[in-house]
Amino acid sequence: MTKYKKLDENDLAFLRSVCSPERVAAGSAISQDYYHDELGGIKSAPDALVKVLSTEEVSRIMKYAWDNNIPVTPRGQGTGLVGAAVALHGGIMLDFSAMNHFLDLDEVNMTLTLEPGVLLMDIYKYVEPHNLFYPPDPGEKTASIGGNVNTNAGGMRAVKYGITRDYVRGLEVVLPDGRIIETGGKIAKNSSGYDLKNLFVGSEGTLGVITKIILRLIPLPKFKLSLLVPFPDLKSAISAVPHVIRASSTPTAVEFMEREVILAAEQFLNRKFPDNSADAYLLLTFDGMSREEIDLAFNTVAARCLELGALDVFISDTDERNESLWAARGAFLEAIKASTTEMDECDVVVPRLHVAEFITFASSLQKKHQVRIRSFGHAGDGNLHIYILRDDLAKEQWEKTLAVVFADLYGRAHELGGQVSGEHGIGFAKKPFLNNSLTPDVIGLMRSVKQAFDPKNILNPGKIFD
Amino acid sequence: MTKYKKLDENDLAFLRSVCSPERVAAGSAISQDYYHDELGGIKSAPDALVKVLSTEEVSRIMKYAWDNNIPVTPRGQGTGLVGAAVALHGGIMLDFSAMNHFLDLDEVNMTLTLEPGVLLMDIYKYVEPHNLFYPPDPGEKTASIGGNVNTNAGGMRAVKYGITRDYVRGLEVVLPDGRIIETGGKIAKNSSGYDLKNLFVGSEGTLGVITKIILRLIPLPKFKLSLLVPFPDLKSAISAVPHVIRASSTPTAVEFMEREVILAAEQFLNRKFPDNSADAYLLLTFDGMSREEIDLAFNTVAARCLELGALDVFISDTDERNESLWAARGAFLEAIKASTTEMDECDVVVPRLHVAEFITFASSLQKKHQVRIRSFGHAGDGNLHIYILRDDLAKEQWEKTLAVVFADLYGRAHELGGQVSGEHGIGFAKKPFLNNSLTPDVIGLMRSVKQAFDPKNILNPGKIFD
Repeated sequence: MTKYKKLDENDLAFLRSVCSPERVAAGSAISQDYYHDELGGIKSAPDALVKVLSTEEVSRIMKYAWDNNIPVTPRGQGTGLVGAAVALHGGIMLDFSAMNHFLDLDEVNMTLTLEPGVLLMDIYKYVEPHNLFYPPDPGEKTASIGGNVNTNAGGMRAVKYGITRDYVRGLEVVLPDGRIIETGGKIAKNSSGYDLKNLFVGSEGTLGVITKIILRLIPLPKFKLSLLVPFPDLKSAISAVPHVIRASSTPTAVEFMEREVILAAEQFLNRKFPDNSADAYLLLTFDGMSREEIDLAFNTVAARCLELGALDVFISDTDERNESLWAARGAFLEAIKASTTEMDECDVVVPRLHVAEFITFASSLQKKHQVRIRSFGHAGDGNLHIYILRDDLAKEQWEKTLAVVFADLYGRAHELGGQVSGEHGIGFAKKPFLNNSLTPDVIGLMRSVKQAFDPKNILNPGKIFD
Repeated sequence: MTKYKKLDENDLAFLRSVCSPERVAAGSAISQDYYHDELGGIKSAPDALVKVLSTEEVSRIMKYAWDNNIPVTPRGQGTGLVGAAVALHGGIMLDFSAMNHFLDLDEVNMTLTLEPGVLLMDIYKYVEPHNLFYPPDPGEKTASIGGNVNTNAGGMRAVKYGITRDYVRGLEVVLPDGRIIETGGKIAKNSSGYDLKNLFVGSEGTLGVITKIILRLIPLPKFKLSLLVPFPDLKSAISAVPHVIRASSTPTAVEFMEREVILAAEQFLNRKFPDNSADAYLLLTFDGMSREEIDLAFNTVAARCLELGALDVFISDTDERNESLWAARGAFLEAIKASTTEMDECDVVVPRLHVAEFITFASSLQKKHQVRIRSFGHAGDGNLHIYILRDDLAKEQWEKTLAVVFADLYGRAHELGGQVSGEHGIGFAKKPFLNNSLTPDVIGLMRSVKQAFDPKNILNPGKIFD
């Protein structure tokens, strides 16, 4: 275990000289919001919180931290769910919320260069008037793009468009010792040495500090249509998914949901979902450049769903209706959270073939372990969100229950060829499960990569693996 | 410089015990075809050539090589252009041509699991009857998929569909010391630790030996249409590209070609191209699930091209016509090669915005350096293939000319935000240019990754960087 230097007045004076005093907070002046992330279970205070404004500031701070052996934790909006942006060993927290500028929208190369603190929801708004589109669509729109890149966020449109990684063209990164590098660029292809860019993407701030991002954009689809398809039960809903994906144009999104989650969302939003009479639903979206293309997809898929046992097909082809459907979908996490005292989540990804089997298994754990479990997620890409709810369990019982439920869930996912995290990352919370899921050889390779990039282990220590 | 063990009779006896004697060749029994790759400029003989049949054989050989400090070079079909599959330091060459089996076509997960020796052209044929499609489309269809993964091959459909990297879901890899690992899988999303998979993709056989590949497939587009668009000059052709890409559905491919290359192809194939009267052409393809979608794209783009100065638009909507067009395009490399005594190539990628500028610059070097230069390439993604032709230059003059032309080309590409290789890799031939193009810090990181994976430097030594 590395022994880190404890921050003292000299260190704070240095930080204030780099960043101007009002952007440096220390000790109890740091809001407790910075002690934890969205899930809240893991808490630890940084010794100093620095609101950085430039790559140069980040570089100077990293060099200082490197020379003085001080741990550094980069942080975007703190919307993570696994404790990746929590300063487990204290030290310096770099707050990127003010490094949030759009730098260059290049319409010919269809790229957007921006700072990591830009919010996801602002990206969509910024590029749309130019008829451009940033496809990744994680549920949490107030996340920063820097956080999204660091967790390789996925989201709902992955079925058709892929994940954050697929849209990162280039990065500027400050290495743990303060050196600044660039990897990738505005180019569309690259076979020029090892793929460092993809190593930084998804590394949860442990290999380098991302200070600039070049995103790839695509032409904005002109037409959009959503289908809400009720099924008599979850199994028939999920079983329809592969047929839906193969039937016609690839759907943008294929989400599944059960009635109980819809009811929770209705209550939370105080607004009615278009239908809540069935046990299970698929929510599909199609987009494209021509109305004909969308109509063809809709007709083919609707017919196929009805053949496969769907009770009905509700079409939603106005912006207003679409918005209402997806607003409900977007509120699931918050609605479930509001329905209980505390919760924890599992973000496994399994091959699409095994989604139904896994969801049924997860549901069966409610009875086995006497705990309430809710799930929804991306049926189209096999990434499932399963929430274990504490309700009125006593602390000790809750922790015991969580441990056995997680062990069952991750164990089953592993058996089915799945992985621990589809899009939320490992951070601190999922380390033991990653450790059980991957072989010692693979963990060993990851550790040797960390050692190669950050031999002093000062950058976001205690994350992903020990 | 590592001192490697020279292969002796004991080593050969070991190889014969692992692989059966008829699959092990040594010394002069090795065909000279294995001394070089497709470009031929770099030659070196392996001491032993082993036709492997299984992961277990590869693992046992790697462990032996590791223990005895023997260099190992994996080789697919030897269709590379930068000397990556040449045994620079002798030692053992692993020939994957017989490890060429399809293992699992999973229609629900839309994945294809296969051995690295399968030929690219066989993949298309294998999946098409299932209405599935493997989008990457490098010109060289006799390449093996293992070679494609190791160079992160790009090809003509990258504009719409991306590159090989985007279709690799999972890998089985034998590490330099013989341990076998898996990374990725049949899953569509993954945020579970560092992205080792993408590190192996494009690593040119220097980090691990790929023994199994899981590819992602997509539904086969039902309709296809090509457009051949003549322009009065190259500049107006290339300037139209960004408008074409933004006009409607993203084209599958956007290639540019000049008359002189078309004439060479006509002569080489002894068959007429649909038109050869204009100075420059764009060749476009659109594909999709509905005829309407394609027609819309065609109409919009044809109108836009004519507005932008196109002389005509030739539509090609039958399989036969499409085949004829693309056969000519596919023969460019061979046709140019046949027109001269020897040639070398540059495979830079620049941001799409700078394609016209770069091609004009490349062309101007003919006069400046008194040498014939031909180019064609992927106007849609900025990846250009520029061929420097020796014709009747004396050896010394040829080498001098090549050096100055390459220095000019790579220098200019770098100034324009480009990279040394878009899809052919670095291998041995492009090392000095990569070294000039990347900063010492970036090269240093790549070197530290190599050190982490292969501390003895026995796996394909002498490639990518020194």
